Amino acid sequence: MAIFSNRHTQIKASPIRDILKAIDVPGMVSFAGGLPSPESFPSLDGLALCHKRLQYGISEGDEDLRSFLARRLNQRGIDVNPEHVLILSGSQQGIDLVAKLFIDPETTVAIETPTYLAALQVFDFFGARYQCYEAGGIPDLTSDGQQQPAFLYTIPTFQNPTGYVYSTVERKRLAELCDQTGTVLFEDDPYCDLMFDECDRTPICSLLQKTSWIYQSSLSKTLAPGFRLGYLTCSPDLFPLLARLKQAADLHTNRLTQHLALTLLQHPDRETQLQTTLDQYRRKRDRFAELLTEHFKDIAIWEQPSGGLFFWLRLLPRYRQDTRQLLPLALQNNIAFMPGEAFYPNPSKGGNGTIRLNFSHAADESVEPALANLAALIRSIDPQDQQPKRE
Amino acid sequence: MAIFSNRHTQIKASPIRDILKAIDVPGMVSFAGGLPSPESFPSLDGLALCHKRLQYGISEGDEDLRSFLARRLNQRGIDVNPEHVLILSGSQQGIDLVAKLFIDPETTVAIETPTYLAALQVFDFFGARYQCYEAGGIPDLTSDGQQQPAFLYTIPTFQNPTGYVYSTVERKRLAELCDQTGTVLFEDDPYCDLMFDECDRTPICSLLQKTSWIYQSSLSKTLAPGFRLGYLTCSPDLFPLLARLKQAADLHTNRLTQHLALTLLQHPDRETQLQTTLDQYRRKRDRFAELLTEHFKDIAIWEQPSGGLFFWLRLLPRYRQDTRQLLPLALQNNIAFMPGEAFYPNPSKGGNGTIRLNFSHAADESVEPALANLAALIRSIDPQDQQPKRE
Repeated sequence: MAIFSNRHTQIKASPIRDILKAIDVPGMVSFAGGLPSPESFPSLDGLALCHKRLQYGISEGDEDLRSFLARRLNQRGIDVNPEHVLILSGSQQGIDLVAKLFIDPETTVAIETPTYLAALQVFDFFGARYQCYEAGGIPDLTSDGQQQPAFLYTIPTFQNPTGYVYSTVERKRLAELCDQTGTVLFEDDPYCDLMFDECDRTPICSLLQKTSWIYQSSLSKTLAPGFRLGYLTCSPDLFPLLARLKQAADLHTNRLTQHLALTLLQHPDRETQLQTTLDQYRRKRDRFAELLTEHFKDIAIWEQPSGGLFFWLRLLPRYRQDTRQLLPLALQNNIAFMPGEAFYPNPSKGGNGTIRLNFSHAADESVEPALANLAALIRSIDPQDQQPKRE
Repeated sequence: MAIFSNRHTQIKASPIRDILKAIDVPGMVSFAGGLPSPESFPSLDGLALCHKRLQYGISEGDEDLRSFLARRLNQRGIDVNPEHVLILSGSQQGIDLVAKLFIDPETTVAIETPTYLAALQVFDFFGARYQCYEAGGIPDLTSDGQQQPAFLYTIPTFQNPTGYVYSTVERKRLAELCDQTGTVLFEDDPYCDLMFDECDRTPICSLLQKTSWIYQSSLSKTLAPGFRLGYLTCSPDLFPLLARLKQAADLHTNRLTQHLALTLLQHPDRETQLQTTLDQYRRKRDRFAELLTEHFKDIAIWEQPSGGLFFWLRLLPRYRQDTRQLLPLALQNNIAFMPGEAFYPNPSKGGNGTIRLNFSHAADESVEPALANLAALIRSIDPQDQQPKRE
């Protein structure tokens, strides 16, 4: 028998796998993954592959892309130079690297609840314990003893799954709190460019005075997920450590697509295309909101997201149920969604009766019938049959 | 102050980083990295990027590439189906996934010494202790207690760094030993296609009867490193675990290049191109061997590799020195090489006076002056000045 590591007990099947598999089923309307609309993808016509990028490259990433991204980060208010930009094989990789750097068994990590499920998956795997707080709220940070979190993980802009945006005051308060307690800030910002209504998107890391920090973002949401490109920057003390971890993880990121991505990002039409995508997504969001009001107003409550890719629904008490048990039934009806329970560190402790719905991916004409169908399914199930109703 | 994980103390600067950085210095002749010759790279002209691959995909990799690679594995004698093929972001990633699955602090891992330095880097990072044996030899495996290795890591064909090839008898013996002791076999086979002289390349995993195993290979050496594509297969008990770890690491591998690679691998000219590369490399190896005889015969001993990318030199006693201290001097002279010490788990315990020289990358006309120069450097340094000479 194989002798596994202790952490192997934390290797759990992830709902993401099912989602990614469900995409390709014909007829499936997926509200599940954070999938961009295929209409938002760039044209690849005429794009040249760069022969020079076939050789091994440096672990940190190719210089031209790092310089471009450093300028973008500067525009966002983060004072970094290209030497402190690390190209990632998707921002999921940044989570793995940060977890490796900080988390031992029983290490405390401060997180928003609910939060990105695949971050929880990685933190769990390395043995994290959690200090939880609600996005925008005040985490109970401490600067001494075992309870001090190794870092605070936040998605302050268009949070996944809730869509929440930290206010100016909340951003400032969190930065001050991290500085006061010496808590490392890990800011995950994949949705920052997907803004539909004006709001403060100042990176919290740019407000810090003292404490160490990591900031990461993704090209998956506004360029294309298939590129698997993300990037991070961090305070100078952490950069050499994260760069070495990157090298140990996969030597360096795919260079052909680093070059393709840069070509696309520098294209003169890029801003126009991004605006077109934002207009499409805003329209999709508005239509989705109308349909939710039509079909879910007596079932659930939600807030309209100012950006990002998701609506976060909380079922009203009489319909409250473990939505993980609703999922197989929905899938049989060719509807995929993400049960809210998956976004809580201990599924039994939170998320009961919540659902995350993506509005960017499904084709316009399929949204209404699928939402109507999903609402009917929720109405048809008596939560009493599933588990005790808790008010 | 940041509170890091215990394992962070094992994050060390790696010689690989310096090598990859040294490539781009004008005038540098690099014998250091395992870099393919740029002449071996495929033409990218007329290759179409697949728009469909811009969306998220499944963690295991795209089906068409997995099917192709399963057939290739079958031809090598490994009985697997496409469902048990996992596409990696380079085979370095396979090492990270296996380490995550098996290694806790103080876990014993059986390794060849010397062995691939970036595998040691990952194993060290997760806290491994080592049971060492010489490639082709008999590891001291046991089936009980703390000393039982969690797995045995081997590169049986054109080993890195020594170029050693396990004989038919040695392959069979190692498979039997793993079966008898229930030791998991982790077979790393990135160089298998780079054969210049006929030899047995039977995957050892294909000879196993009982024990669990992982087999991985790479497209970096015969297609292009810049693609960052590798793949693994394993016994069915391990596949779900490794697939989930892959998903947590980076969701899935770049899909645009999965498609490009498959197109290139299926191209009617592919076999001819590979033969051309092998002919070039054989010629390069033969020329390198001649030049070594000319310039190093009174300095070092070596064996001619039947495949792979490296010569492994052991300096004769009177020139024996810590070649890590020779490297900066060589770099000043625009010559990069890899000190042998880096391929031993504890640098102070082995490798003194060894050098790995890559023969595939440097341009033909630059090899002779650089080798002559390197030999002169070695002759010019009195090891007595460096450290006590040990005979």
